[in-house]
Amino acid sequence: MSATAPTSTLYLSAPAMAGLIGRKGVGHCIAGIAACIREDFLRWPQFEKSARVASHSPDGVIELMPIADAATYTFKYVNGHPRNTQRGLPTVMAFGVLADVATGVPLLLSELTYTTALRTAAMSAVAASALARPDSRVMALIGNGAQSEFQALAFQRLVGITTLRLFDTDPAATAKLVANLDGTGLQLTVCASVAEAVRGADIVTTLTADKTRATILAPAMVESGMHLNAVGGDCPGKTELHADLLRQASVFVEYAPQTRLEGDIQQLPADFAVTELWQVLAGHEPGRTHAAQVTVFDSVGFALEDFSALRYMRDAAVELDMGEHMALIPALPDPKNLFGALRQSAASASQGAAAPGLKGAPG
Amino acid sequence: MSATAPTSTLYLSAPAMAGLIGRKGVGHCIAGIAACIREDFLRWPQFEKSARVASHSPDGVIELMPIADAATYTFKYVNGHPRNTQRGLPTVMAFGVLADVATGVPLLLSELTYTTALRTAAMSAVAASALARPDSRVMALIGNGAQSEFQALAFQRLVGITTLRLFDTDPAATAKLVANLDGTGLQLTVCASVAEAVRGADIVTTLTADKTRATILAPAMVESGMHLNAVGGDCPGKTELHADLLRQASVFVEYAPQTRLEGDIQQLPADFAVTELWQVLAGHEPGRTHAAQVTVFDSVGFALEDFSALRYMRDAAVELDMGEHMALIPALPDPKNLFGALRQSAASASQGAAAPGLKGAPG
Repeated sequence: MSATAPTSTLYLSAPAMAGLIGRKGVGHCIAGIAACIREDFLRWPQFEKSARVASHSPDGVIELMPIADAATYTFKYVNGHPRNTQRGLPTVMAFGVLADVATGVPLLLSELTYTTALRTAAMSAVAASALARPDSRVMALIGNGAQSEFQALAFQRLVGITTLRLFDTDPAATAKLVANLDGTGLQLTVCASVAEAVRGADIVTTLTADKTRATILAPAMVESGMHLNAVGGDCPGKTELHADLLRQASVFVEYAPQTRLEGDIQQLPADFAVTELWQVLAGHEPGRTHAAQVTVFDSVGFALEDFSALRYMRDAAVELDMGEHMALIPALPDPKNLFGALRQSAASASQGAAAPGLKGAPG
Repeated sequence: MSATAPTSTLYLSAPAMAGLIGRKGVGHCIAGIAACIREDFLRWPQFEKSARVASHSPDGVIELMPIADAATYTFKYVNGHPRNTQRGLPTVMAFGVLADVATGVPLLLSELTYTTALRTAAMSAVAASALARPDSRVMALIGNGAQSEFQALAFQRLVGITTLRLFDTDPAATAKLVANLDGTGLQLTVCASVAEAVRGADIVTTLTADKTRATILAPAMVESGMHLNAVGGDCPGKTELHADLLRQASVFVEYAPQTRLEGDIQQLPADFAVTELWQVLAGHEPGRTHAAQVTVFDSVGFALEDFSALRYMRDAAVELDMGEHMALIPALPDPKNLFGALRQSAASASQGAAAPGLKGAPG
């Protein structure tokens, strides 16, 4: 890529990303992103962190999630519109950028709809590896929507889960999940209620999407020693766990200032004790201390996970020589002469000499 | 564009934008964006506003600038790296997105490096039209870098400026500006100092780029009745005007919470009196009240101006049938089945059946 302009941006479209994930394998990508997340969480203090910037509307939310270390800046654009599926659109759509801190050049523009599903599952598995009982084999999956297959594969590969107990208020969602997991070797049990699915599970993963204060899990359902992977409660007004359940458990979070606004702990006072997961991974704080303890990962999705995913995908694209180059930023013959470059580029375009399209990656 | 997927994003690359601006004309685009800015500032209370999110590093800054009304969300990514020109890169590079609030779909991804230059000049001209003396004909341009031609053309077209007095510490920058303005009909005088350039001017525009607390303009240089268009002081630690000069003038800003952090008024206490420009445009507050008054537009660049520019460019692209369609978001046959779509798209890609590239706009 050395022959391209220094302002050229590598572009990974959604179809290109599907091709990349297909060549690598979904499980391989989740494992690779999980390794990057672990590396990046271990150098947590090196990142400039902030809670994401959310724009709420009656139908949903649009968020920007920036983060940077000394060398690399990333941000993700992501929406959450629970009623989108009624319009034939995904509930969650995302894209992101990886840029050079030293110059500000956007080096990579990537789809992140597929990638967010991978990284959310990878993050859940990293947390469960540190917090669930090591002998965990059975997981309940409450909510069998777009994220559920990725969670199933991540926990099979990285946590050792062999059996899934499935529940969704929409039987069609569960049927889709069962069909998609065919051939994976996972044992599947379709359950008639949340309580039935949760009974006897080692890990309970909640993936519900309604933008409401729901109580998917109540204290009576939870057994000693369980790990709860609470993924669906991730914005103000959107929760899944009963507050008493949180009070009786050990709660772990990604980035406390953001989770207090968006996670299930938004139901609790601002001084409710939580542990940031990076402290556990780094050995500064204990994770699970005994087999009967109930642990909760109150996951909301933090910008650092997208940083990890974007750098994994950039490296994979370079390795596989995938993606295209886009001229999102003008290449200026004299960077102090923007006006001259504009006039020259406009003249070329009018003569049909410009190539405003994307150039394929050099072979 | 009705045949494209509902998740399809219109893409305006930097060369495509140069072509679009070339077809419309720079002056025409500036006037069109100025009209959009005026419209949008007049409905100021309808916007969800916030100060931009800045990530500072030793070499520069990377910022995200989101804003939304009930129907449309936009954000801009923009950097500021004063030493970039030594590496052959622009000091300021930008791109942005316009999205649908109801669904979160990104409808437009556009270059904004050229466009930011146009909208900054349009904003300055909108402010000067409300604040400068109506008989203003002579403008001093202090700093003759990448933004200077656009300011010159905006003030000629929208404010009635006929004569420019030019100064830059780098004579090559001034020579470039003089060459680029050849044939515009503007009368140009190259000056040997800031003081010489400012003397007798009706409007003084400062466009310096150093990320330092500078004093480009001191009180002794300023004459009664002048309008100061202070564009260069636009982030913490980067100022152009002497604090006493601000104290003796009437100061107007875009969005006070952001300008108090980033503008020249960062040198003054948080309760220093300023007027938001939209109040003047809407007739709620007076602008200039007498011919001897010194007015200052302490411009930093606000997200609403990019909102205005993005909607102008989207409409222009649709009108001229320019731009391409990009698959930044996957088109899912069943939006609840992300995993199935990923597997299917990956299989298509491996069979060479996918078209991961951009599709040209339908003719």
